[in-house]
Amino acid sequence: MRLIEEGLRQLDLSGKPVELYDPIQYFMGLGGKRLRPALCLVACELAGGDPQNAVFPALGIEVFHNFTLVHDDIMDLADVRRGQPTVHKKWNLNTAILSGDTMLVKAYQLVSSVDSAFLKPVLDTFSTTAIEVCEGQQYDMSFETEDPVTEGDYIEMIRLKTSVLLGGALKIGAIVGGADDETSQKLYDFGVNVGIAFQIQDDLLDIMADEAELGKKIGGDLLEGKKTYLLLKALENSKGKDRQLIEKVIVNSGIKANQTQKYKELYVKLGVVENAAAEVKKYTHLALNALKNIKNEEAKIALDWLAHLLTDRKK
Amino acid sequence: MRLIEEGLRQLDLSGKPVELYDPIQYFMGLGGKRLRPALCLVACELAGGDPQNAVFPALGIEVFHNFTLVHDDIMDLADVRRGQPTVHKKWNLNTAILSGDTMLVKAYQLVSSVDSAFLKPVLDTFSTTAIEVCEGQQYDMSFETEDPVTEGDYIEMIRLKTSVLLGGALKIGAIVGGADDETSQKLYDFGVNVGIAFQIQDDLLDIMADEAELGKKIGGDLLEGKKTYLLLKALENSKGKDRQLIEKVIVNSGIKANQTQKYKELYVKLGVVENAAAEVKKYTHLALNALKNIKNEEAKIALDWLAHLLTDRKK
Repeated sequence: MRLIEEGLRQLDLSGKPVELYDPIQYFMGLGGKRLRPALCLVACELAGGDPQNAVFPALGIEVFHNFTLVHDDIMDLADVRRGQPTVHKKWNLNTAILSGDTMLVKAYQLVSSVDSAFLKPVLDTFSTTAIEVCEGQQYDMSFETEDPVTEGDYIEMIRLKTSVLLGGALKIGAIVGGADDETSQKLYDFGVNVGIAFQIQDDLLDIMADEAELGKKIGGDLLEGKKTYLLLKALENSKGKDRQLIEKVIVNSGIKANQTQKYKELYVKLGVVENAAAEVKKYTHLALNALKNIKNEEAKIALDWLAHLLTDRKK
Repeated sequence: MRLIEEGLRQLDLSGKPVELYDPIQYFMGLGGKRLRPALCLVACELAGGDPQNAVFPALGIEVFHNFTLVHDDIMDLADVRRGQPTVHKKWNLNTAILSGDTMLVKAYQLVSSVDSAFLKPVLDTFSTTAIEVCEGQQYDMSFETEDPVTEGDYIEMIRLKTSVLLGGALKIGAIVGGADDETSQKLYDFGVNVGIAFQIQDDLLDIMADEAELGKKIGGDLLEGKKTYLLLKALENSKGKDRQLIEKVIVNSGIKANQTQKYKELYVKLGVVENAAAEVKKYTHLALNALKNIKNEEAKIALDWLAHLLTDRKK
């Protein structure tokens, strides 16, 4: 979207000391889909507002999202992000912590740059969402060593870690656009449900995608022993020898590369591929349902298109 | 102050997952002088407001201050804070990062809990201050490996890292109390200058205090090779053999314990003890001068008393 790219270009994230600001500029320059700010602007327009008024909060949400990535990369010991070294790898741990902290404050400054009539509800939405994202990240980390983790626990984790920020971006855009509480809430629900569908779809593609289309080897989550929707559901659906095989993934913190095909077949046999596809459908349906009473047809088409784009994808 | 202690007791920092919230409750419970929230309430009262209206932002500033300590403790590899294990020591690195992040968001929630008429200026002051505190921490870290660091660099670093938050606490209290811009700014200047005086006094006491009164061995900064006001000034004031001795502290990242007395005598000889005392006096004077035109005599006495308490102390 032109407004976002322009906004990002004009956004001044330079400053002194350069040791603090260079990593921020580096990370924000790594790109990304800019999905959250796009949702924020679409919601503002849908509510009948001028999207220009939502540019600052939209950018604030994008800076916040990138702040979470900088700190998550430390926690997940990730060396690479978008094909480039992560901040703690390119600089060091302390820089990644402190530049991340600064990004969170910058995010607040941007989100606060709205008409004062909307400041309070925008801030409240942003803070609530930000806290939930932290809670989601903590659940995600705790799950690594926790046993058992149920399907419900998992959905709640991805709701907090990923989905509420999509919902929050839409709600903030709607508020700035002058939407009433009901419309803001519906857009929020749309975002949260699309987010959950998106994440389960992500889990599904990791094992079921076409390798050529995906652009990388399938089964990465299994190799790491990640507790995805599929793995947790497989644990629930299996008995006897099958269950032992699934438990092995968790106990051994992952499988060997040559076992991927075997596990893929097991997932199909246990019905978890079907289960996951049904869940994607369910949450996409919930998302679209939330839009039902929204009047602005043009914006509805845009969001409908987006929901399918995110959840029907092949990679 | 009763209002602060009551506020802290009522402040609900519990939540789920407990892995995220337990460390926050633990750290906030370690105590401390609660100086910043006290300044916030005093400024509110001085401006003619009801201090009750400043309790939430005051608590927000205290939570923010504690957030900086949790993250600084990671960066400084500190194992102990207020006689107890630091968060990353008692739990782990990831917990300290994420609980700290959550504290920063909680701080914003509290600071935002003010009359909507004051929300925008309070938030702007808070965000500007928060960014400066991050910049100060980065300067402090960069100074460890940077050469040369001048006296001016050092004053700027402590202004950002420590002093602006004292100023910010006062300014926010003043705004909520209904002060005009000039009064808010004067109180801010008072806080910043007191803060600088306080920090230089701290550097001075580290070597000149009475060990029995200080409650620990003197010379801790020298043992660590920390670039304090005294060390930087000593570098500036010395030549020949004396200079070599001072440079040794930096090159060797500290001295041996049995050399403390020798360096203490060198500091006196080089005049840096006098210099530091003169600087404490200068900044205390600047602080008190900022209060000159303030009418509320009772509050002025309180702040005057506080300035002397902080800068005349023996430990």
